[in-house]
Amino acid sequence: MVFGHQREQGRRVLLRAIERNGRIPRIDLSNITGISRATVTTITADLLRDGLIAEVPREDSTDARRGRPRVDLKLAGDAHLVAGIKVSGASISLILVNFEGIELTALEVPLPKGPAGTDALADSIAQATQALAAQVGKSLSDLSGVGVGLAGIVDAQNGTVYWSPSLTDRNVNFRDVLSLRMGVPAFLDNDANLVAMAEKTFGLGRDHSDFIVVTIESGVGMGIVLNNQIYRGTRGCGAEFGHTKVQLAGALCRCGQRGCLEAYVADYALLREAASVGSIDVTQPASGQVKQLLAAAKAGEPTARTIVERAGHMFALGLANLVNVFDPELIILAGEQMQFDHLYAEEVLAEMRKSIVQIDKSPPEVVIHKWGNAMWAQGAAAYALDFVYEMASKDVREDVG
Amino acid sequence: MVFGHQREQGRRVLLRAIERNGRIPRIDLSNITGISRATVTTITADLLRDGLIAEVPREDSTDARRGRPRVDLKLAGDAHLVAGIKVSGASISLILVNFEGIELTALEVPLPKGPAGTDALADSIAQATQALAAQVGKSLSDLSGVGVGLAGIVDAQNGTVYWSPSLTDRNVNFRDVLSLRMGVPAFLDNDANLVAMAEKTFGLGRDHSDFIVVTIESGVGMGIVLNNQIYRGTRGCGAEFGHTKVQLAGALCRCGQRGCLEAYVADYALLREAASVGSIDVTQPASGQVKQLLAAAKAGEPTARTIVERAGHMFALGLANLVNVFDPELIILAGEQMQFDHLYAEEVLAEMRKSIVQIDKSPPEVVIHKWGNAMWAQGAAAYALDFVYEMASKDVREDVG
Repeated sequence: MVFGHQREQGRRVLLRAIERNGRIPRIDLSNITGISRATVTTITADLLRDGLIAEVPREDSTDARRGRPRVDLKLAGDAHLVAGIKVSGASISLILVNFEGIELTALEVPLPKGPAGTDALADSIAQATQALAAQVGKSLSDLSGVGVGLAGIVDAQNGTVYWSPSLTDRNVNFRDVLSLRMGVPAFLDNDANLVAMAEKTFGLGRDHSDFIVVTIESGVGMGIVLNNQIYRGTRGCGAEFGHTKVQLAGALCRCGQRGCLEAYVADYALLREAASVGSIDVTQPASGQVKQLLAAAKAGEPTARTIVERAGHMFALGLANLVNVFDPELIILAGEQMQFDHLYAEEVLAEMRKSIVQIDKSPPEVVIHKWGNAMWAQGAAAYALDFVYEMASKDVREDVG
Repeated sequence: MVFGHQREQGRRVLLRAIERNGRIPRIDLSNITGISRATVTTITADLLRDGLIAEVPREDSTDARRGRPRVDLKLAGDAHLVAGIKVSGASISLILVNFEGIELTALEVPLPKGPAGTDALADSIAQATQALAAQVGKSLSDLSGVGVGLAGIVDAQNGTVYWSPSLTDRNVNFRDVLSLRMGVPAFLDNDANLVAMAEKTFGLGRDHSDFIVVTIESGVGMGIVLNNQIYRGTRGCGAEFGHTKVQLAGALCRCGQRGCLEAYVADYALLREAASVGSIDVTQPASGQVKQLLAAAKAGEPTARTIVERAGHMFALGLANLVNVFDPELIILAGEQMQFDHLYAEEVLAEMRKSIVQIDKSPPEVVIHKWGNAMWAQGAAAYALDFVYEMASKDVREDVG
């Protein structure tokens, strides 16, 4: 006799074990989880009947045992569809994955530059998600969950966006707005947290329990993993790096305060300096202006160099402060754009290492991980899948047990 | 039949339960720990025989149960003696506690100003500890453990002092040097961590699982409590605040780097500015100079004011960065000296609150806790007691079980 809550707990544990292992025989499930073979048999029968898992022939036939059916269990790919979405400054990147986390299709749609109203952004996301689903002949109502990563101050637990460069409104429960607009459960997080989750799940942080991810796009983000979990602070949205202050009464930041790291290293910060001395052609698009400025700095043009070098100095100072405070074993610098090479430069990292407290131990490892918006979206999909697995675990039928 | 490792585990659990509860009947011990009444009886008999605990008459006689001996168990105060020591810039503060953590005597001895050699400082500490024990007719060899708090970069796990303003040498295993010199197990930690531990054990952090303690003396220290434990970072000595950078290529710090918070807020930082403009009498002792400077600032003298106000601005900036990165629910500003009132001032805290990321939630609570060196020493004693309890738990006789 297996009681309801035990069965639910068993479903969760077994579903997670199957998810983590890809393909696994029942006997190994019992060994790994400590759940009895009989209960594994009962619960996996339920999971098979519910279409959440499938039986597949054992791949490694040399491992066959006489007299036993050589089948493994795996997640049933078509059990659920989940979308992962990353909202950037100028575009929305979307990826559609199945229940196994396998990418089915992807899409990138342009977004008007600058922040949008809550409803307008929700509409843009819903339309883009609809278009994504249509690429495989599905619609919004076929999705089981949508994970969305946004820059800014996001409380993942309650779904509130306190501030985002993508939104004109503040203190919006954007998760609820999105869920209602799409008719699909939405899951929201700060985009850098989603990158940290992606690094932890299938990236460079796989083998580390504690690390920091710093993301560089038009802004600077941070995700902290402590003890294998995203560190969120007391108010649910801790770990803010781009708005730590690197200069008392310093440069004006988009957030309205002065001296924020972003106000020195973000592209808008570089461009306003360059524009003020007339060293770039301001009639071209911003990305072209940044390219022009960085090319000029590389070519040794003194004004361009002083602008770019200051950004590097400030970035090194900010990183050194993170190391002093957290003492992580690994820092992952993650960004999609080659244009931030000047921040990843060896002289910047060397300056960081010189600015941390000097002890007779190696400084933390710093690795650079360049990935595109698709990878950010993949983090968002992994985040949403996590909730969908959770919901699937709870799907215990009343008439059984 | 109770096996050795079970008995050791049982001793640890019961000893800790008795420690936490002060006075407790056997039956409650069984209920609290889940250890059977029979095993509680066996193990507490061992602990009584070993002199680690004592029986005392039940205080609350209305709680008496018919037919049962109305006795509680408590730690045997005289089972072990432990010293707690705080090494400051100009003195060593010592406290002697018994096994119950009750203070028996205290002592403060002056120390020559400035850093000392490893052996010289070990000698000073050993002599002072000897004098402390002599105050109650005991000697060094009567002590079971000595906890020592030092400013600087200390790896508590391996006992190494990487750098301390109290030592001329770097990368010294000062714990081993002290243990050998005194013939008593020494336990070392960064002094701010010991304050955090004291705040957690019997101070303002009792009811908080996550908080930050910032200590202000001649330097600036920090202890972080996350999930009820001191956060030590990957290399064992994380959570450095005084040497986070608040200014690129800024004021020169005692550590040799530029722009550290300490280089703006420590007393030496204030005095070198004041001396350079001839606004203080440099022939008097440093503490007198600081007093003179602060009095002049309070009286509105412009040079003194600009020096003191800059320290406040930098301190607010540093605190704001801690809040942005950690998002703690509580910050405890702990320091012994009234002279740092200018850093605790409401305008400094208001500036901090203005410099953190603004969301629709309250900023963290900031409380000021002024306590003397004796309290720091008490933190050190609590730290050492913890190890002594651990050692006492392991004291399982071979001839029993």
